Amino acid sequence: MPWSPFRKLTPYADAAKQRGLTVHHLNIGQPDIETPPSVLAAVQQADIRVLEYSPSAGHDSYRRKLAHYYQGVGIDVAAPDILVTAGGSEAILFALLSCLNPGDEVIIPEPFYGAYPSFAVAAGVHIVPVTSHIEHDYALPPIAELERVITPRTKAILVCNPSNPTGYVYSRTELEQLRDLCLRHHLFLLSDEAYREFCYDAPYVSALHLAGLEQHVVLIDTISKRYSACGARIGALVTKNRAVQEVALKFAQMRVSPPGLAQLLGEAATDLPATYFDDAKAEYLSRRNLLVKRLQAMPGVVCPVPSGAFYVMAHLPVDDTSRFAQWLLEEFEHEGQTLMISPAAGFYATPGLGRQEARLAYVRNVEVLDQAMDCLALALTIYPGRTA
Amino acid sequence: MPWSPFRKLTPYADAAKQRGLTVHHLNIGQPDIETPPSVLAAVQQADIRVLEYSPSAGHDSYRRKLAHYYQGVGIDVAAPDILVTAGGSEAILFALLSCLNPGDEVIIPEPFYGAYPSFAVAAGVHIVPVTSHIEHDYALPPIAELERVITPRTKAILVCNPSNPTGYVYSRTELEQLRDLCLRHHLFLLSDEAYREFCYDAPYVSALHLAGLEQHVVLIDTISKRYSACGARIGALVTKNRAVQEVALKFAQMRVSPPGLAQLLGEAATDLPATYFDDAKAEYLSRRNLLVKRLQAMPGVVCPVPSGAFYVMAHLPVDDTSRFAQWLLEEFEHEGQTLMISPAAGFYATPGLGRQEARLAYVRNVEVLDQAMDCLALALTIYPGRTA
Repeated sequence: MPWSPFRKLTPYADAAKQRGLTVHHLNIGQPDIETPPSVLAAVQQADIRVLEYSPSAGHDSYRRKLAHYYQGVGIDVAAPDILVTAGGSEAILFALLSCLNPGDEVIIPEPFYGAYPSFAVAAGVHIVPVTSHIEHDYALPPIAELERVITPRTKAILVCNPSNPTGYVYSRTELEQLRDLCLRHHLFLLSDEAYREFCYDAPYVSALHLAGLEQHVVLIDTISKRYSACGARIGALVTKNRAVQEVALKFAQMRVSPPGLAQLLGEAATDLPATYFDDAKAEYLSRRNLLVKRLQAMPGVVCPVPSGAFYVMAHLPVDDTSRFAQWLLEEFEHEGQTLMISPAAGFYATPGLGRQEARLAYVRNVEVLDQAMDCLALALTIYPGRTA
Repeated sequence: MPWSPFRKLTPYADAAKQRGLTVHHLNIGQPDIETPPSVLAAVQQADIRVLEYSPSAGHDSYRRKLAHYYQGVGIDVAAPDILVTAGGSEAILFALLSCLNPGDEVIIPEPFYGAYPSFAVAAGVHIVPVTSHIEHDYALPPIAELERVITPRTKAILVCNPSNPTGYVYSRTELEQLRDLCLRHHLFLLSDEAYREFCYDAPYVSALHLAGLEQHVVLIDTISKRYSACGARIGALVTKNRAVQEVALKFAQMRVSPPGLAQLLGEAATDLPATYFDDAKAEYLSRRNLLVKRLQAMPGVVCPVPSGAFYVMAHLPVDDTSRFAQWLLEEFEHEGQTLMISPAAGFYATPGLGRQEARLAYVRNVEVLDQAMDCLALALTIYPGRTA
């Protein structure tokens, strides 16, 4: 079982704080956006005498409201297609356990979410990476490259759309290529859509918008980012495939029920008006624009414009972003501040890739981001391992 | 992946209710005891602006308070020995994933908790059952029988103490036999102690009370039963074995954090006075005494006196308790009432066992239990498949 790839930096961040530094945490996807007070109130004002198990698939009322939410974003599902999970995390695990047998393979474009390898170990399956490149904005690799690695053990393709860590949003054309590939080879398309609401430059296309692929798609979803409620641990596995839904339900019955209090929160969130996202999106968009502008102005930095989520992946002119990230915490400071970034090697399965890339999360406001970019710009001019 | 063994009765219970019957649910471990208002208030009055991820191992403050709780029951652990999980369920899964490799074997005395086989499938490990018998009150089988099934792939013994489903509480002598066996064969002792507080006839002995076994023990725990908060989904994996705790933490990092709101509840629960359990225990004890008295008075029923948890396992004079349980819901009624029981076959791994046994949970008050026993007594005299 692998360690979290970012764990080893934490002690250095703690030490920096102990020395009195302000550490700007651009390393994690924990937004500073307020959890909507009305959805917290739904939990805090609920009349609960006995906090009982909920049904294994989640409260019926919540599943019905979730179905309504999905219909509102053009995803035609009903309550029985939805299994409420303990965060998107449990949905990932249940999707792998339900669609693959031990020893089977899942193809994932890399760089990918850093926890996927751990889920693969837990489910006993193998990840086959196909590399996307910064020069192409981390677009879907040519479909022939995905097709080339298909074996008799390949059961699924897993995509994160919009992507953590790259912020790339797949186009309809790319998704249709994936659809045709899945149909041709009888593969599941596992689509992690945690950042669905945060697309800035084009309308969002879900895997469940693809006509003809309905029986192959398993959506992985969560309220963590959508409503800035990461700590709630409420997500969903959504599929119109009855057989998959049945197997996933067996895994759900194993753990009896998803978190109860947080389901109340999730249910209340479905009552928020669609305009709720306008403010959050506008905020993230201005942050993205600032971050990209600042990064692109730094000599040697290459930074595609990400269309979604709240991450930027950038090539930095350094020998190794792991070493650089540690140096930022151990040896650098600017006006009492430094920043923490995610070295990209942890997002690649192919050894050696990502050593000059890092992910920055724009989960702090523009003032903070501006200060963090002041730090980064200066750091890149004095870091001993700079390459530009 | 197996279905929950009790799932197929649910539609019959629903249909009975639709016909207007009152169904007494003695089939599940969902108590009617009130969740302590003060611990619910801790969540409901919390000042939360952003519901953030907690640390993967749980909030430090909660782990420290949990350590204090454990010290109060004579279990000498500190915060770093404790990993907060999504219910006891996740602790079971993490314990199996952390202590066993795929294909390894875990010995479990049967009858056992009905979800263990699903966790074994999810973790890719094999359950080797050793049968305990109603004639011996479901005591630990002779240690030689456990020793006989040990193979090079055996890595652990899993016990539930007090036992779900039998209510049996292991004696110190039995636990010391288990200790010696584990030491002799280098096995982990996974000890599911969800019902620790509910021991009625003798003081409780935890696996972590066993001198010399500290590095072998992994406690599986939960607040579900202790504080009647099943829906919270907060549990813990507790071990002084650093290597196991490290691997378990990797699995915890995979899913980022345990439920956040419910951790506040769990933390507040540690502030309850030790006398909190007096009322709950007294209530369960009077229920147990009533249930056992009524059952033992029914011709052909054999019912050991369970010393802990809130379950009774009974031999019923019927052809098959699965058939009988369905008949109770489909064809029986007494003054507008019937009851739902858990056929014991679902608690055995050995095919054919448990067909004349059923589990009854005393999770309803004595008046309801009395009415349910009126139903059962009558049903046993007219059920077509009766054997007495």
